[in-house]
Amino acid sequence: MLEQRETLHPLAARFAQVRQHTMALAAPLSDEDCQAQSMPDASPVKWHLAHTTWFFETFILEPFEAGFAPFHSAFRVLYNSYYNGVGAQYSRPQRGLVTRPSRSDVVAYRENVDARMLALLARGRSPELTALVELGLQHEQQHQELIVTDVMHLLSMNPLFPAYQPEAMLPALGGPFLWRDFAGGVVAVGHDGEQFHFDNELPRHRQFLEPYQLASRLVTNAEYLAFVADGGYNEPSFWLAEGWDFVRANKLSQPLYWHRQDGHWRVFGLDGLTDLQPDAPALNLSYFEASAYAQWAGARLPTEAEWEHAALTDPSLPQMFGTAWQWTSSAYAPYPGFRAAPGAVGEYNGKFMVNQYVLRGSSLATPPGHSRATYRNFFPTGARWQFSGIRLAR
Amino acid sequence: MLEQRETLHPLAARFAQVRQHTMALAAPLSDEDCQAQSMPDASPVKWHLAHTTWFFETFILEPFEAGFAPFHSAFRVLYNSYYNGVGAQYSRPQRGLVTRPSRSDVVAYRENVDARMLALLARGRSPELTALVELGLQHEQQHQELIVTDVMHLLSMNPLFPAYQPEAMLPALGGPFLWRDFAGGVVAVGHDGEQFHFDNELPRHRQFLEPYQLASRLVTNAEYLAFVADGGYNEPSFWLAEGWDFVRANKLSQPLYWHRQDGHWRVFGLDGLTDLQPDAPALNLSYFEASAYAQWAGARLPTEAEWEHAALTDPSLPQMFGTAWQWTSSAYAPYPGFRAAPGAVGEYNGKFMVNQYVLRGSSLATPPGHSRATYRNFFPTGARWQFSGIRLAR
Amino acid sequence: MLEQRETLHPLAARFAQVRQHTMALAAPLSDEDCQAQSMPDASPVKWHLAHTTWFFETFILEPFEAGFAPFHSAFRVLYNSYYNGVGAQYSRPQRGLVTRPSRSDVVAYRENVDARMLALLARGRSPELTALVELGLQHEQQHQELIVTDVMHLLSMNPLFPAYQPEAMLPALGGPFLWRDFAGGVVAVGHDGEQFHFDNELPRHRQFLEPYQLASRLVTNAEYLAFVADGGYNEPSFWLAEGWDFVRANKLSQPLYWHRQDGHWRVFGLDGLTDLQPDAPALNLSYFEASAYAQWAGARLPTEAEWEHAALTDPSLPQMFGTAWQWTSSAYAPYPGFRAAPGAVGEYNGKFMVNQYVLRGSSLATPPGHSRATYRNFFPTGARWQFSGIRLAR
Amino acid sequence: MLEQRETLHPLAARFAQVRQHTMALAAPLSDEDCQAQSMPDASPVKWHLAHTTWFFETFILEPFEAGFAPFHSAFRVLYNSYYNGVGAQYSRPQRGLVTRPSRSDVVAYRENVDARMLALLARGRSPELTALVELGLQHEQQHQELIVTDVMHLLSMNPLFPAYQPEAMLPALGGPFLWRDFAGGVVAVGHDGEQFHFDNELPRHRQFLEPYQLASRLVTNAEYLAFVADGGYNEPSFWLAEGWDFVRANKLSQPLYWHRQDGHWRVFGLDGLTDLQPDAPALNLSYFEASAYAQWAGARLPTEAEWEHAALTDPSLPQMFGTAWQWTSSAYAPYPGFRAAPGAVGEYNGKFMVNQYVLRGSSLATPPGHSRATYRNFFPTGARWQFSGIRLAR
Repeated sequence: MLEQRETLHPLAARFAQVRQHTMALAAPLSDEDCQAQSMPDASPVKWHLAHTTWFFETFILEPFEAGFAPFHSAFRVLYNSYYNGVGAQYSRPQRGLVTRPSRSDVVAYRENVDARMLALLARGRSPELTALVELGLQHEQQHQELIVTDVMHLLSMNPLFPAYQPEAMLPALGGPFLWRDFAGGVVAVGHDGEQFHFDNELPRHRQFLEPYQLASRLVTNAEYLAFVADGGYNEPSFWLAEGWDFVRANKLSQPLYWHRQDGHWRVFGLDGLTDLQPDAPALNLSYFEASAYAQWAGARLPTEAEWEHAALTDPSLPQMFGTAWQWTSSAYAPYPGFRAAPGAVGEYNGKFMVNQYVLRGSSLATPPGHSRATYRNFFPTGARWQFSGIRLAR
Repeated sequence: MLEQRETLHPLAARFAQVRQHTMALAAPLSDEDCQAQSMPDASPVKWHLAHTTWFFETFILEPFEAGFAPFHSAFRVLYNSYYNGVGAQYSRPQRGLVTRPSRSDVVAYRENVDARMLALLARGRSPELTALVELGLQHEQQHQELIVTDVMHLLSMNPLFPAYQPEAMLPALGGPFLWRDFAGGVVAVGHDGEQFHFDNELPRHRQFLEPYQLASRLVTNAEYLAFVADGGYNEPSFWLAEGWDFVRANKLSQPLYWHRQDGHWRVFGLDGLTDLQPDAPALNLSYFEASAYAQWAGARLPTEAEWEHAALTDPSLPQMFGTAWQWTSSAYAPYPGFRAAPGAVGEYNGKFMVNQYVLRGSSLATPPGHSRATYRNFFPTGARWQFSGIRLAR
Repeated sequence: MLEQRETLHPLAARFAQVRQHTMALAAPLSDEDCQAQSMPDASPVKWHLAHTTWFFETFILEPFEAGFAPFHSAFRVLYNSYYNGVGAQYSRPQRGLVTRPSRSDVVAYRENVDARMLALLARGRSPELTALVELGLQHEQQHQELIVTDVMHLLSMNPLFPAYQPEAMLPALGGPFLWRDFAGGVVAVGHDGEQFHFDNELPRHRQFLEPYQLASRLVTNAEYLAFVADGGYNEPSFWLAEGWDFVRANKLSQPLYWHRQDGHWRVFGLDGLTDLQPDAPALNLSYFEASAYAQWAGARLPTEAEWEHAALTDPSLPQMFGTAWQWTSSAYAPYPGFRAAPGAVGEYNGKFMVNQYVLRGSSLATPPGHSRATYRNFFPTGARWQFSGIRLAR
Repeated sequence: MLEQRETLHPLAARFAQVRQHTMALAAPLSDEDCQAQSMPDASPVKWHLAHTTWFFETFILEPFEAGFAPFHSAFRVLYNSYYNGVGAQYSRPQRGLVTRPSRSDVVAYRENVDARMLALLARGRSPELTALVELGLQHEQQHQELIVTDVMHLLSMNPLFPAYQPEAMLPALGGPFLWRDFAGGVVAVGHDGEQFHFDNELPRHRQFLEPYQLASRLVTNAEYLAFVADGGYNEPSFWLAEGWDFVRANKLSQPLYWHRQDGHWRVFGLDGLTDLQPDAPALNLSYFEASAYAQWAGARLPTEAEWEHAALTDPSLPQMFGTAWQWTSSAYAPYPGFRAAPGAVGEYNGKFMVNQYVLRGSSLATPPGHSRATYRNFFPTGARWQFSGIRLAR
């Protein structure tokens, strides 16, 4: 446990707060829940607990701590996710097989690194160190969201449909549907470089937008159900060719977490299996499904520039943040003039800029303070286990 | 054989010419060469001969010919590529198993449809009919290029490395390397709608470009060899993450058609296996390889808007057309306001706008008259059997 | 063409006859038919034509012909099936991609080797040479059967269901069903070593058989249809566990070549698609299907020793030869004291003695003179494209 | 915990003892160790704990207990391994994803069923009930061995190579190598039907054996190392064809648990990673490896009849039991006259009698009292995670 002493520097206090929040997310889970890996794209919660710690140890303690010695020599490989610049990585699809170190070993690892980090921060905070600590905290917040989505996917594989948190956060409702008008023109896109941002949000640059309209809220369960009921998953003309292949190869007929039981639609969520709520936003949709729905609805998905411009110019739009990530039609690509950071940290974003699509906003699982209009989330077109929804454009 | 009568209307004459060119491309090939399918992405030459004919029969003769009856009732399914609006399709990876109809049956099919098409065209040419004929001819020209690339891939699987045409066209050389400057700004992108164009080139719209530079020519074999020799295929930092997975999964160490024999580099081409020509452009590269090379070279790939703007504003640029398709960093996506054509013909382009990247220009295998600055070719990131090369930008 | 001169030695005459029979089997086929490979387990007819020739060139001409020079240096690898002792092999699943050499090139190869073989045989026939020639001819006869089964599988993939030979041989009918009694005891199994035999038929040895009964004929289409109609493919209790996995993975509901059209059962055969003949034997069944049928019928499959003993002691049993190979419950294994021949020829049989099951008898596609009671055919449990049927035991 | 009251009937006492031994095997393991599944062929320890309990609940309590009610309605599917006669089964490869019920829930399930079983047994023990209890105990003993082999495989995937039990049982040594002679003839094979036996050991029947020799002990690590050092994994002539494909597909160069570190051979075992012991038996070998070693050594594997006859006639043979299961060349097949038990229990053995090979003896992980000369263990040819070794014959 980290002690919250009054004398903590704000950065150290924030460090302690973020780290504790991760532990709080794991608190409702058994050791077994934290061990299992439900698919190669997901990771065990225990791995998330360790990897976020590895990030601080590798990128901060190793270069900044005097007399640095690793907590455990094997962890450098075991908890490296994908940083080739750091060295080899343990096989991703087999993360669920590492039963030792135990969860309590990993918690001890966290406590050790936390203590050393706080000691380091107490000795001074150069701009470089501050920037890396902030990056580590933002990184940990991203994994906080993944802990929620990964464990929910794991529990969804259980025929008993256990709840992660019975008193789970509910998605916000969006009110009546309206088209909002935006004039477009040459607009600025990307972060201004002040405050924290990821490298993929830079540089701020100009794009030309034709006039467009954006939906005032996300597509609801009732609306998506109308698409399903209209034969949406049986009619190829709604789907991208690769999406139609995806539907047939996986025999899809509905969203990932929807279940038809005794003539009623039920939806699996953080609180287990409950009746479908018509006014709640449709969640856990892939890009393919979002695209097909938009085609069926006679609309389209927005580009990320359209979404960002709207978010910045009309702060009154409901459900932009905190409900569901919103698929855009923009492939994840570098902004003009993009430069990855030097060193292994530069592998954070740039190398993933292919065959993925940008999602904007944030979701009910995004930790507080981790949202902004220029934020670029990204996933492959078949990803369905995130809290991803649809905001239409035209 | 189509008779070239003096009295042919220009559209009919063009029809006859394009159709004959397809037959000329198949002329050097045996029935066996025309039968085999080397991979699911490629098709047998015999299938190309039949499918292009099916296109005219299905989309023109069926609606326009009085008393239409199909040449063979089974061909509607057998030679449908991917048009769900027309109905079922024969399994694509098994096209090489259809030994009957024979090649001579398919040639008879071509001759039958040719004669009926010419008779139809002799009776009148409404704008709608004219547009569909032109689409059919452009479609056939696309398959002419595929005939060349597919048969070359087939012959590359043969340990004897037979030549398709000993007197094959050679790629043009590009001269000295220079960076050409372009000022950018708000530029118009897309086709103006006059003359033939595909639906994906519309609508003409505005984009904002930051100032940029484009290479005066394509990357040469000698330059790409330097990348290989520098350990290009062994160093993950040059590669997109998915590209690096691609390299390792396929154990790649060089371009698809390069062979190391007795200490010498040899390259398979339309004229068989010959010594690597240092000044010739590096060909048959995937997007992943193009991206990795650019990263190694300290540059990047151009966007498709940059490429198009340069092509339109500097006609003196060498190797823009007729040598190799040039990978851009632009994912294949609809232009703002894009509308697919109604009916099955609307499946031509739009449904492929995901997880593919745009190539611009044209190649040595592109038939004459089938190139323009607004043309958008597209392939997945792992495609290596096209005549695809690299033009750097920065 | 081989000339049948009166002065030919009987071995040479037999050589000429067997070689000509192979050509006759290919005569109804186009070059395209001879090129295609329908699955990795099957081979193109052109490959069979070449490989059987390679066998004589490699195992006879190379050691016995004075001044031997290969017909083509690349053929040693190209047409080697699986003899590691000879060297590398061309990838089996890609045999259908070798469009050159053409069929006419392969025929020229055959004629060249035939002429050299006849010249060699005219100069003398040592026992060793005679034995190898006979092995080569028996080997060619095995491939004659494969030509028929492989081309039938290829044509079955064609939605037009073309016939290989409209006047195809029909399977013999078996008459009324009777149980025949055999007393068992210590019986001799295996070939006595006189006349031609494969090494896997040796040594003749003793086995103890409990008393048993064998069906007087093969299971008919009508009988197998009763199994299908009784839900045979939907009830796991009839199937071996691995067979049930096979049924579900491949979504099987009937034999490979059975088709349900407009309420009628039709069967694909050498003469195309025809109505199911109730009294004809059920053909093209896998071991899994044979086993499941036997379980449903309250019987079992015979062991190979039982089958052989019955064949030798009751020559009046119908359909033992010339109709369908008959699955036995015996895994393909070496007889006690089995010794493979030295050298590459020793790879003929022994190395396949695992995870395959023995079939006894011969089929309508087996060439004349290639059957005997001790003959051991073998295929994996999922093989369905051979003329394989069921004779029950209990 | 089961109370060991003095008044327990011997069958109840044995029930309590076997059930407690299972718990003792899991005692050194954490909840995380018990959760993970390292491959589809293995199961989580927690699943073994539950499935063995399910066996008693389903096959004994359900039919015999008055007023039976299931402990949990979902367990019927969740812990059914492969009994189609009982109904659906949870997906085998996903057993590691069921984090709830927890291990403590499963222990409660065990305790509940134990108490009800003991109460049932206290009320009377009909022959049918006694037979089913004994079958359930033998079944549980089989899973006791699987707990050891499955958890060892799991731990072997961990780069830290943790030990299951530091004080693990060591395999017995076998002494000097000798060939032992057996005269053969008509011998009896199979269980006599007295005492407990599985249905696959019946009926006792006659087989004829040619004279043979059997090795006095198992192949040692030193001997197997000589095979490895002689290029055993690089020379196809030692291997069955399918075995050679297995070697190449899996890039094998040594046994599963052997590791070459700094020029020394080390072996992973129940006590972690230790130096290779030359005189200890080579363990964890597949059938393919056993067959290749025998070929290299100029010998062969025994048939199961040879092994059984030797075990019964020469009780002085070392290492027949308690060290390693010994591959035989006999495919797993029904004995003449074999009849599976009626009902779902009949799925225990018969349906697996295809494409597997028989192992005889028992291993260091086989629980006490679970060995006999007629016992038929069986695994597919590629299985390497069992304690399986080689005893040569000729």
